[in-house]
Amino acid sequence: MKKQYLLAPGPTPVPPEVLLAMAKPIIHHRSPDFIPVIQQVRADLKWLFQTSQEVLTVAGSGTAGMEASISNFMSPGDKIIAINGGKFGERWLKIAQAFGVVPIEVKVEWGNSVDVSVVADLLSKDPSIRGVYVQASETSTGVAHDIQKLAALTRERENTILVVDAITALGVINLPMDAWGIDVLITGSQKALMIPPGLAFIGVSEKAWKLQTTAKCPRFYLDLKREKDNLLKDSNAWTPAVTLWIGLAESLKLMRAEGLDKIFARHARLAQATREGVRGFGLEVFAKNIPSDAVTAVVSPQGIDGQAVYKNLREQYGITAAGGQDQLKGKVFRLSHMGYADVFDVITAVSGVEMVLTRLGYKEKPLGSGVARAQSILIKE
Amino acid sequence: MKKQYLLAPGPTPVPPEVLLAMAKPIIHHRSPDFIPVIQQVRADLKWLFQTSQEVLTVAGSGTAGMEASISNFMSPGDKIIAINGGKFGERWLKIAQAFGVVPIEVKVEWGNSVDVSVVADLLSKDPSIRGVYVQASETSTGVAHDIQKLAALTRERENTILVVDAITALGVINLPMDAWGIDVLITGSQKALMIPPGLAFIGVSEKAWKLQTTAKCPRFYLDLKREKDNLLKDSNAWTPAVTLWIGLAESLKLMRAEGLDKIFARHARLAQATREGVRGFGLEVFAKNIPSDAVTAVVSPQGIDGQAVYKNLREQYGITAAGGQDQLKGKVFRLSHMGYADVFDVITAVSGVEMVLTRLGYKEKPLGSGVARAQSILIKE
Repeated sequence: MKKQYLLAPGPTPVPPEVLLAMAKPIIHHRSPDFIPVIQQVRADLKWLFQTSQEVLTVAGSGTAGMEASISNFMSPGDKIIAINGGKFGERWLKIAQAFGVVPIEVKVEWGNSVDVSVVADLLSKDPSIRGVYVQASETSTGVAHDIQKLAALTRERENTILVVDAITALGVINLPMDAWGIDVLITGSQKALMIPPGLAFIGVSEKAWKLQTTAKCPRFYLDLKREKDNLLKDSNAWTPAVTLWIGLAESLKLMRAEGLDKIFARHARLAQATREGVRGFGLEVFAKNIPSDAVTAVVSPQGIDGQAVYKNLREQYGITAAGGQDQLKGKVFRLSHMGYADVFDVITAVSGVEMVLTRLGYKEKPLGSGVARAQSILIKE
Repeated sequence: MKKQYLLAPGPTPVPPEVLLAMAKPIIHHRSPDFIPVIQQVRADLKWLFQTSQEVLTVAGSGTAGMEASISNFMSPGDKIIAINGGKFGERWLKIAQAFGVVPIEVKVEWGNSVDVSVVADLLSKDPSIRGVYVQASETSTGVAHDIQKLAALTRERENTILVVDAITALGVINLPMDAWGIDVLITGSQKALMIPPGLAFIGVSEKAWKLQTTAKCPRFYLDLKREKDNLLKDSNAWTPAVTLWIGLAESLKLMRAEGLDKIFARHARLAQATREGVRGFGLEVFAKNIPSDAVTAVVSPQGIDGQAVYKNLREQYGITAAGGQDQLKGKVFRLSHMGYADVFDVITAVSGVEMVLTRLGYKEKPLGSGVARAQSILIKE
């Protein structure tokens, strides 16, 4: 017998209440039984997104949400700023190119947050730029970008929207959509929302809806206007992923019961304890300036392959963490503390890392030194 | 206490084995635990589609599969024949228009199957037609089209593909993709595959893959080539809907154990019993020539609103059937016998209809006359 621990940045663990709700006999999406589910989800997603606008739900991965944020608001030839500081930042460029949208790349060295003044300069020089596309949390590097400052740049411009991929940020850190002026806010089901993958969520501001009316990129399945028109009638454009919606309704109840402030504070504390925990064991956090509170990328120590850490965590201790992606493969490993995560998930992560690295020959610090540092954070109220 | 019976044409009931498999703690889609799931699903989908080609799975509704079948194989300006004999046939036109593809509409009166000679004429007059798009089973009317005959028209043409929406047909009737020469075969999860909505499946022939290389419609999330390249490495382009895949693996095991011949024979028998059952009660089946074995649309008797039948089935007897859509609203009601369906689902449907219509004032035939006719079919081996 080996117990399994899922500490990867998505899918994240699903609470048992949610698993059981999804295991009930399926119901029909146009039956009266499903309408209260839609109504609750509508209201709770507005609460979670901190917006008075409708939040659209589509069956698809987070990438479907990212595609929708380009195809719904841009026309071929339109210019956008694509902030690229990791694997998910890169994706903006690829999607834009697929749709004939012209990305102006703001390349950010992996591990860094974007220099907002670079974006400000580009915007002030070119009034035709129609969108700024950015990750709130770049999952591949464990780095956050300063969304509030970016929103301050776009909110005064009539025809420029700020599009935020918050797939590993919404429900982790504070991203008040309306208060900051985020125009398109995207998340996915399998992260802080604590349900299995298969749903993407998109909040859309009034400004973005206005741009949508003239945006000419082709869209059908991911046409957000059609979704909105249906949602206003407590319905869906296409057959929704019923079981995932039912799980979502359940997990949103859990989130409501905890409250946004406590959710953000919990993630901040778990993230800080993880960062301090690995530092206490002599390791370096990959994020240079603003670390993500969803996932911590840890630099693998000199002479030890990050992929070996990731593999041994799983094989020796049943812990599924994540390795590095692309240029970071072998250089980092990543620990998630997002969603259904608490004190002893951090303790498990840090102590597992200590044991695996020690077995791989790491001698910088003794066992328990990272755990002790994490505990010193976690013991505080 | 009122027991619930789901007899709508999707979502269809999910077998308890499948619900329980999906209720297990979630696993990571890049962990070694998930690879056997991918491998089994790959093999079993080839078996189900009767093809040697890879079958692609995307997170999305059936409409996502329909969109992929246009955006992956066509360029703006390309001409396709869109066979439109119902609500889903209409969708070809809408998707084509959204992508700048030019649909030549073959309008088929609702209730009829397409006249194949009309398609043959159009094809012979215009060698530039690049695709024929059709439903194997039009869910809104309960009508099937003759796919084998249509495939005979396209299979000798090098640059014309046959695209079949088999969302309510695959796993119901025999549609041997390779043997008949179907180029793109689409289905969804929530029908005969007996799992919840949220996955679309697309089988693609060699001829269609060849066309894909020059097809210029924009696509990213639904890029099937990217899905195929990943699938060949037992991976996915984007985060897959893990729990639905796990349910799928379980339901494909059930289907394999039954065998294709028996699955088709069971559906044929249940469909025939349903049709004969309602006829035995004096009602008319809406399908004029080839009825669908997935769903039976029944004409509501003179003076009785089809929506009232649908509503009373649910309110009085806990049976979720389906009403009519668009122009058929109020004129028909629909009974599904697809997927996890057996003898007593048909008996439930026919007897429920008898009781509801009798309570609504229908006096043509006595209670039990339809049931007796259905039984006379179902009693045969």
